Amino acid sequence: MTDTAPAVPETTTLTALLEEAPDLRRRLGGTSQDWTIDEVGDANVNFVFRVGGPEGAVCVKQAPPYVRVAGRSWPLTPERVVYEYRALEEHGRAAPGAVPTPLHLERDAHLLVMEFVEGQTVLRHHLSRGGVHPGLGEQVGGYLARTLFATSDLGMDAGRKRDLVAEFETNTEMCRMTEEMVFTEVYHDFHRNRWTTPDLDAEVLALRSDSEVLTAVSRLKYRYLTSREALLHGDLHTGSVMVGAGCSRVFDHEFACFGPLGFDIGGFLAHLLIAYFAADARDGGRRRAVAGESVQQMWLLEEVERTWDAFREGFLDRWRSAAHGSAFPARLFTGPGAEVALEAERSAYLERVLTDAVGFCGAELIRRLVGFARPVDLTGIGDRATRAGCEIRAMRLARSLLTEADGYRSVADVTAAARHLRAGWYPG
Amino acid sequence: MTDTAPAVPETTTLTALLEEAPDLRRRLGGTSQDWTIDEVGDANVNFVFRVGGPEGAVCVKQAPPYVRVAGRSWPLTPERVVYEYRALEEHGRAAPGAVPTPLHLERDAHLLVMEFVEGQTVLRHHLSRGGVHPGLGEQVGGYLARTLFATSDLGMDAGRKRDLVAEFETNTEMCRMTEEMVFTEVYHDFHRNRWTTPDLDAEVLALRSDSEVLTAVSRLKYRYLTSREALLHGDLHTGSVMVGAGCSRVFDHEFACFGPLGFDIGGFLAHLLIAYFAADARDGGRRRAVAGESVQQMWLLEEVERTWDAFREGFLDRWRSAAHGSAFPARLFTGPGAEVALEAERSAYLERVLTDAVGFCGAELIRRLVGFARPVDLTGIGDRATRAGCEIRAMRLARSLLTEADGYRSVADVTAAARHLRAGWYPG
Repeated sequence: MTDTAPAVPETTTLTALLEEAPDLRRRLGGTSQDWTIDEVGDANVNFVFRVGGPEGAVCVKQAPPYVRVAGRSWPLTPERVVYEYRALEEHGRAAPGAVPTPLHLERDAHLLVMEFVEGQTVLRHHLSRGGVHPGLGEQVGGYLARTLFATSDLGMDAGRKRDLVAEFETNTEMCRMTEEMVFTEVYHDFHRNRWTTPDLDAEVLALRSDSEVLTAVSRLKYRYLTSREALLHGDLHTGSVMVGAGCSRVFDHEFACFGPLGFDIGGFLAHLLIAYFAADARDGGRRRAVAGESVQQMWLLEEVERTWDAFREGFLDRWRSAAHGSAFPARLFTGPGAEVALEAERSAYLERVLTDAVGFCGAELIRRLVGFARPVDLTGIGDRATRAGCEIRAMRLARSLLTEADGYRSVADVTAAARHLRAGWYPG
Repeated sequence: MTDTAPAVPETTTLTALLEEAPDLRRRLGGTSQDWTIDEVGDANVNFVFRVGGPEGAVCVKQAPPYVRVAGRSWPLTPERVVYEYRALEEHGRAAPGAVPTPLHLERDAHLLVMEFVEGQTVLRHHLSRGGVHPGLGEQVGGYLARTLFATSDLGMDAGRKRDLVAEFETNTEMCRMTEEMVFTEVYHDFHRNRWTTPDLDAEVLALRSDSEVLTAVSRLKYRYLTSREALLHGDLHTGSVMVGAGCSRVFDHEFACFGPLGFDIGGFLAHLLIAYFAADARDGGRRRAVAGESVQQMWLLEEVERTWDAFREGFLDRWRSAAHGSAFPARLFTGPGAEVALEAERSAYLERVLTDAVGFCGAELIRRLVGFARPVDLTGIGDRATRAGCEIRAMRLARSLLTEADGYRSVADVTAAARHLRAGWYPG
């Protein structure tokens, strides 16, 4: 076994574990002789299998004590599946159907079993092939509204929330990956950084000496380190969403922790924007010379807006109707004028969340453009100059989102900036 | 034993426990026959004893499973001494000499033993008697700078801080007292609220229907619930500080939790301001007719400024010289202009802390004026009309600090407002 090619876990061990859980045996049907085991997904960090039986299928995720794509040279706690399992429970309760149902946890084997959803594709691949998924923004925005509200102090009693914060606070190693990979490594000379060279060399060097960028990203890191607003997915990108059959499912919650609401929201928007800029390279870059947007590109910007709008409306609805938490207690707001004042406060609150989300969106864009974990939307663009063009446009937007987050007063300002920046690239 | 007169723990149990700890036995000297045990302090919540021996003395604090002044009808977790002990360890490491040294913890007996500091008085009593303590602001501001910096993401690695957050996160019951008593109860009709009636009836009713006040205090509650900036004392008032022999010692850390820096700072300033307004009632209220401030009053406002200044300078010094934490990592700020940008960011950061502190100061003032835990500075004023006058002046300031915190751009704005408000009360 080489350092970079870790062994796949023995399937006999896997079936033995599944056989011992009556619920799972029933779900699969038959006996282990009737089961098929296939590795699925494109997991960079873990092993993921579909186990199918006569009655149904389950998804099994096993965490090795290292990052799978990097091998044993990059150790990583296998305890991450425990946090993922718990986050699936909490988010599943808040937003039934929006995440795969967690079925079983084998702590010692660092293995979790969840519902296998048939007929869905990873959103990132779907987008890379030029696909659209009507309802995406409403579905993901709805997931964000429900999960973030339910686990915040607006939706939850402070005592219960403190218990949850204590529980997720120890997901330290995964949080450290975020602290380093999103907010730090990209901004100095670090051996795992990757970018399209030499085309983006100047951009990368500029980042490292741009004081506005450095203070803005450090302020966001501080916010990630100190805010405990709600239980986050923690790594919500288009590779963490499955789409198909008119719905979306969010998975891969191993980075779950309490943090600022805007982190999940901004992260997801960043990946829609990456897809937007990357789409110019489709069909061998022929679209490069075309100022007009493709249907998919128009749809992507609409979904940026719909994601935010659905989050905002869903969050507000719950605040108005299900504010059972300890913050902004209903018993204070009973007098004349109180509801009007509270409604103004709700709007102000969501403006602050938008500012956070815009900043985090900029940070996420940058780390996906010039950091270690570059998405296939970009790395899949074969022609270097074409790829660099898409990346530089995305980088310009990212810098503005990061350093001028306050100036984006609505999500339409974000899509307008993306559109304006892309259009400015074309003559006429 | 009646509900409101809980039994003092058996002193024989106490000596038996002390005898079993070799360190404590050595510190006291002799054997238990040579020891004297005296109840000390004016603890409302716990039992506190001085145990003296031939060689020295220790302070013993024992937590009953209820609030001492209220009796068994108000249960409260005795686990609070564990958090107090741990906070004394962490704060003592950050600011040696600023807190009593913790010596021993008996978890099962809910009893903690700490250094007994001879020759010091509780600051609140000293102030009530008209006393001053030169160096107070520098000492308490220095304590705040050292403890808050060391336990923040600026002074501490994120992994270690997450461990500490997880540990203190479960001090749930004490945090709930703060959530309720500081940010909630006072703002609605609640059976434990107390105020000078009928003089302050209108003020109290006005609070409950003042939308600006309600949204401002709820925003601060949200901040207390969601911010994990540093390990707070959690209840820093003039009754939690001992002064004498040219130094100050901060004690009673049982409300310790991670929260926003401004909470401890604003809390302490509120109590200096209470002393400032209450001082007009001294000597039977003769000072009421005098527009000029007493020497103590001038000193109190100077110490408000010095507390903030010492905090600010101490915090900045550490940030410049001992920023070993994960936030604003030094490895990013190496280029030309980076230090200038970082210094501007430090100032902006401390402006935000001041805004928080001003708001929390307003909230703390209000809850001490019309809530359950009114301080002896006020309750000790025998003449009702005199007391009400002091309280109404303090209340006016409190409302402004709470709802217009953004407008106070420096600590001098706070003292000027207090002075202006008091002076406006007098003719000519």
